[in-house]
Amino acid sequence: MLQDGFSPEIATLSDDGSWSIVQSAYAPETNLKHETIFTLANGYMGTRGSFEEGTLMSHPGNFIAGVFDRSEAQTQEIVNTPDWLGLRIYINAEPLRLDGVEIRDFVRILNMRKGLLLRKMICQDDQGRQTRIEGYRFLSRHNLHRAGIRWYITPLNYRAVISVESISDGTVTNWTDDPWRRVKHLTLVENARLAGEGCYLETETRQTRLGLGLGTALRINGPDGGNLVRYRKFAAYGEQAAEYCEYLAEANVTAAVTKYAVTYTSRDLAGQSLKTAVGEELTRFLTDGLDSELARHIQAYKELWRVADIRIEGDEEAQLALRFNIFHLMSSANEHDPRVSIAAKALHGEGYWGHVFWDAETYMLPFFVHTNPRAARSLLLYRYHTLDGARANAAGNGYRGAQYPWESTDTGREDTIKWWHVPDGDPIRVTSGDYEHHITADVALAVFTYYRATGDLDFMLRYGLEILLETARFWVSRCEHNHLGDRYEIKEVIGPDEFHEPVDDNYYTNYLARWNIQKALALLTELWREHASCIEGILSWICLPADELARFAEVAGKIHLPADKESQVLEQFAGYFQKEDHPITEFDGNGMPVWPPGMNQHRANGTQLIKQADVIMLLHLMADCFDEETKRACFAYYEKRTMHKSSLSPSIYAIVGLGVGEHAKAYSYFMKTALTDLRDNQGNAAEGLHAASTGGTWQVAVCGFGGMHVDSEGVLCFTPWLPETWRRMSFRVYWLGNLLEIDLRQNEIKAALVEGDADALEIKLGTELVCVRKAADGTKGAP
Amino acid sequence: MLQDGFSPEIATLSDDGSWSIVQSAYAPETNLKHETIFTLANGYMGTRGSFEEGTLMSHPGNFIAGVFDRSEAQTQEIVNTPDWLGLRIYINAEPLRLDGVEIRDFVRILNMRKGLLLRKMICQDDQGRQTRIEGYRFLSRHNLHRAGIRWYITPLNYRAVISVESISDGTVTNWTDDPWRRVKHLTLVENARLAGEGCYLETETRQTRLGLGLGTALRINGPDGGNLVRYRKFAAYGEQAAEYCEYLAEANVTAAVTKYAVTYTSRDLAGQSLKTAVGEELTRFLTDGLDSELARHIQAYKELWRVADIRIEGDEEAQLALRFNIFHLMSSANEHDPRVSIAAKALHGEGYWGHVFWDAETYMLPFFVHTNPRAARSLLLYRYHTLDGARANAAGNGYRGAQYPWESTDTGREDTIKWWHVPDGDPIRVTSGDYEHHITADVALAVFTYYRATGDLDFMLRYGLEILLETARFWVSRCEHNHLGDRYEIKEVIGPDEFHEPVDDNYYTNYLARWNIQKALALLTELWREHASCIEGILSWICLPADELARFAEVAGKIHLPADKESQVLEQFAGYFQKEDHPITEFDGNGMPVWPPGMNQHRANGTQLIKQADVIMLLHLMADCFDEETKRACFAYYEKRTMHKSSLSPSIYAIVGLGVGEHAKAYSYFMKTALTDLRDNQGNAAEGLHAASTGGTWQVAVCGFGGMHVDSEGVLCFTPWLPETWRRMSFRVYWLGNLLEIDLRQNEIKAALVEGDADALEIKLGTELVCVRKAADGTKGAP
Repeated sequence: MLQDGFSPEIATLSDDGSWSIVQSAYAPETNLKHETIFTLANGYMGTRGSFEEGTLMSHPGNFIAGVFDRSEAQTQEIVNTPDWLGLRIYINAEPLRLDGVEIRDFVRILNMRKGLLLRKMICQDDQGRQTRIEGYRFLSRHNLHRAGIRWYITPLNYRAVISVESISDGTVTNWTDDPWRRVKHLTLVENARLAGEGCYLETETRQTRLGLGLGTALRINGPDGGNLVRYRKFAAYGEQAAEYCEYLAEANVTAAVTKYAVTYTSRDLAGQSLKTAVGEELTRFLTDGLDSELARHIQAYKELWRVADIRIEGDEEAQLALRFNIFHLMSSANEHDPRVSIAAKALHGEGYWGHVFWDAETYMLPFFVHTNPRAARSLLLYRYHTLDGARANAAGNGYRGAQYPWESTDTGREDTIKWWHVPDGDPIRVTSGDYEHHITADVALAVFTYYRATGDLDFMLRYGLEILLETARFWVSRCEHNHLGDRYEIKEVIGPDEFHEPVDDNYYTNYLARWNIQKALALLTELWREHASCIEGILSWICLPADELARFAEVAGKIHLPADKESQVLEQFAGYFQKEDHPITEFDGNGMPVWPPGMNQHRANGTQLIKQADVIMLLHLMADCFDEETKRACFAYYEKRTMHKSSLSPSIYAIVGLGVGEHAKAYSYFMKTALTDLRDNQGNAAEGLHAASTGGTWQVAVCGFGGMHVDSEGVLCFTPWLPETWRRMSFRVYWLGNLLEIDLRQNEIKAALVEGDADALEIKLGTELVCVRKAADGTKGAP
Repeated sequence: MLQDGFSPEIATLSDDGSWSIVQSAYAPETNLKHETIFTLANGYMGTRGSFEEGTLMSHPGNFIAGVFDRSEAQTQEIVNTPDWLGLRIYINAEPLRLDGVEIRDFVRILNMRKGLLLRKMICQDDQGRQTRIEGYRFLSRHNLHRAGIRWYITPLNYRAVISVESISDGTVTNWTDDPWRRVKHLTLVENARLAGEGCYLETETRQTRLGLGLGTALRINGPDGGNLVRYRKFAAYGEQAAEYCEYLAEANVTAAVTKYAVTYTSRDLAGQSLKTAVGEELTRFLTDGLDSELARHIQAYKELWRVADIRIEGDEEAQLALRFNIFHLMSSANEHDPRVSIAAKALHGEGYWGHVFWDAETYMLPFFVHTNPRAARSLLLYRYHTLDGARANAAGNGYRGAQYPWESTDTGREDTIKWWHVPDGDPIRVTSGDYEHHITADVALAVFTYYRATGDLDFMLRYGLEILLETARFWVSRCEHNHLGDRYEIKEVIGPDEFHEPVDDNYYTNYLARWNIQKALALLTELWREHASCIEGILSWICLPADELARFAEVAGKIHLPADKESQVLEQFAGYFQKEDHPITEFDGNGMPVWPPGMNQHRANGTQLIKQADVIMLLHLMADCFDEETKRACFAYYEKRTMHKSSLSPSIYAIVGLGVGEHAKAYSYFMKTALTDLRDNQGNAAEGLHAASTGGTWQVAVCGFGGMHVDSEGVLCFTPWLPETWRRMSFRVYWLGNLLEIDLRQNEIKAALVEGDADALEIKLGTELVCVRKAADGTKGAP
């Protein structure tokens, strides 16, 4: 027994500090935050880090990507599905309650390298009985339908019958602690034993009629591996299925409790019986054993980290935070399911109803494009599969083509709520679903970005071009002709900055709309050469006649893009410069802006104060279309007016800031972003992961400090800058199917081709075009 | 606002200390005990004193008399029915959790005079918001289907939207914290709004198919009485029905929250629709208003207390404890339902599965016979209505007549478990259901006791005689003839003392069996004179032929009753005096026996140590059949050998002790009994009320200190003795339809006829026969 570390049984599963998020004391008031940051996800399902035993202050959450339902909810929302975690301990029939015992030597560790949530503690009850419980859980990344828990239970100073009750809980609701929003999406279908080992709970979403099957089995083994259970029973408690096992626990003898869980939904099965699928998979899982699945799970994470890890030397906090963001981001995608994307809170909470925003394409997608192109393709296919919904949105709003919803669920229809309920006040009209149209161009840009980085022609011809054409078509119909100026304007939109709503001619929106139309045309032309019949098929299928297509170039060429010619500052929207100006002069302890005197969120609309990167966002996305002078002017101007009231903002200022030499500020913005959830610096980590922030963090590292960008000729460039304390940073990125390793030191860049079909790859390191070859010959000193 | 008392709104509902059981601090570890002692019951339903908000360490319980079910349970058990209490508060949408706030000025008071559970507290949350919540709940004794909660909520230092969520919870299970026993007896039938106000939850027991309908409605009113609710919604969360109301709470303005609840079961309705019955009753309740129902409820308790109260001057602790026992006992009977009795734990918990034991007749019934004869009749009718089950028990065991079950539920069939599950050890065979046959005579005795005290000839002719004859018939068939001694023996029984099982010729059992047969014969003869055709009808109906009847006297006259002739000590059972003798010599701090060296419960069978009053029990029940010398000898002998490991024991030693002049011991036994649950001196108050103890407490007061007994000529006698500190004790008892008031002082007895048809009544005060008349002329000095 190791009092201050893990027991030998699981000591090998812990890791060094750079891979470990550690909670070193149990405190109920931090439970909700820890449930988010200790969420485990495998892209298919996410399980919040609640305790198996149940505690005060807990929002258990199990979210399966793509399982949405509305019922009485205000909008279609991700469903909190039956909780598979439940494990309760009884000592001589008395329940051991975490909130009713003294807890010593407590530690929980998220081992990010292995995708495990570890725990250790000694519970002393009011009879003085001390019980050590150590263990871990995981959601297999190897087999997405499997999850498991292992506990090692040791009575330290007593002998007793210990009972373990495993519960599958179908009574769960969404927004459990918020009765205004609380909804039960599930009805019970079946609660029964499985024919073999284990018990089975089947539920169904009430409106979308999706079946959810959960099978679990419980085993308890002694130090010799033999079965310890001397009594077992199954019980159906309405919507809870329970398996109960008793064993005789001797003092200082450790029992291994293993819970096996298997989840399938009717989404995964083509009409097969859910119960059969769950039962058979559970049997296989039991045959394989937990250790075997765990090993394959760890191997899967090893493979992910092999590509995705970023190593920093000289800044432990940044290293840990960066890995935290990468871990949760890479755990949230499912490359096997082309009908799901990643929600704003990923699979980590109910915040934003599990809706997908531009966050997925603009913040998270670049990570996948460069570390897991299959996942990136899958994420974009989600937009392809929701294209009909987007077409219906456009038609319903009087436009042509496809208009992506600001908030998207399973259909592509607009699912943004119209009113936000405020407990103490009038409901607030939410207009983002009406006006925040840039999402449609953001999706189009993501399609192109993916294509450019992967060269995935199959994707472009089968799916991407259709998206680009339908979104371009939307913009053409969306633009209004101003006869006086003979220009096209886009009136009444909300740009990324949501303080001003609605505005006319938002620069970001107009620019990307123009880009969208022009890029669709350019690709059409380019691909026509070799794939004419395919293109003709698309045009025929989407009924885009030549005369409509003929207007594309005309409209795009005349889209209004206002700028202050003298200062080179791009005007965020028509009339922005005429708003009251109250530049920010004060910053808080974290270096974040303080509202200028008399200002607040409700007054901001009348001023030039903005919520988040807007013009600066464009300068990041279209980095090679703007000269450095413009960037410098815009950064200087808008930084003084950006309140960063969105977690999407600081990362972009960090990247653009690095481009214009604002290094110190950039580092501060980077850390702000990287610590969003670890430090809970937005105050709402409880509701789920800030998934955009995780992608933003990766982008700052790779595109900011690593200086990765694509120049106008399509060449991948690296113009790095490392914070002074960073001795070294290295990372890997895919480019056109090849995996590059970039190894940076202060004033030194090395690049190597790690894998891929190409023998050599031309990239720019600094300003110099180099040819990187396999093996270590891509080494290059700094320019 | 009164910081140290209740606000004016409910100050009038509190009472002086002699009527108030007070909890002055919130401590989760005492929740279970308080849930039992703060249970409210109206005979129809009992609701444990859990907090409406839900807390750590809580076993909510709602038990409806007669609602039993088995399903997976080990035996037919009382069903934990849907919890109507649920009320949760949200301040600006944040839940107020009792285990998550600082609680100040906390008090809960059981007002026994009015049948109310009052509470008051100030909760301070982590934002410093202070909320005062005061209020009460009650289960109406006026209309048994109605229950209500009133809360006064005052934000003391803030203004916010306060939401109140009312929940009817059908997810409840029995033995929730004991997974070995945990059972869900209910399935959902309907969860819906009612046509008018309120929401409706209907469930059904799974095996007995009893329908349970629960309707609730929530109202929130301001200081002017006007509606405050600005938003209301209903929600069905699977097996939970919820009604949610929001209002804007101003600082220091008190809102009155009222929850109305109506319960019906299919037992109450002759095929009517449950939903209609509940809906219509709820509408009437809302029309009447809570205050009106409360007033009638208080009036009903006033009427009960008018008869049942016992006033003691000079001993505040005894006064409070006595009222506590009387309160719970009188709250547990339903004079309107002749198919239910009172369980060992009453309607206060799941202990003993809600089963009815001899406790009902031997310990509790005398209270009702003398304070509420209608309720007493109803309790005995339960035994009449389960007579067919008792007949089936006898037939199944090879006997004739009716054999009452040791543990009885809804059918009269034996429902005692066969094995007791021990977490850390082998199951223990429970043999009381096989051998504890005295229950059959106990029921017969209760029938006679009731008849003698009330003169209820209608009851005797319609029900009582049939019970007496069928039980006598059982005993006749149960006795075995010993040819050698030409006597009848009853072999293999368990007497009241359960340490020795089974034994032969238990004195208690044999004596009461003889009494049972002889009394049946005597009543048959006596009633034949004027009611021959009625008697003939009974004999015909129960098929008791003359030749079988002819054996009754023969058998009874020869039943073996062994005693030590020299010492006059009655031998508890054949061979008892030959057991090892280890008299008790040591007593603990509470004056209770300590096991003699080397002795314990498992070794007791081989010794003369007994669990509880056995011979002494007989001397109490048949006080006038034994001379004082015998009583004295038996008391002296058995007291040294009685471990009092049953809560049924001390009260009997108190009564018999008073009869033989052991006053100091008697007082100590009395207080032990009276404080059983208040002090939790059996350590299991959590599982429900020690209902036998409540009846035992009343019997010590009235039959012990008051010295009430019936002499061999059927005259009611009082031979009182008061503890030295008691200046005065007075109580009321019914006798032959007349209500007597007995007013005792040291060396002074007064008796008065308070009400009744008789103008005068002959009773004995001390040794003197007096004629008590209406008005105050029954005054009588001590003998």
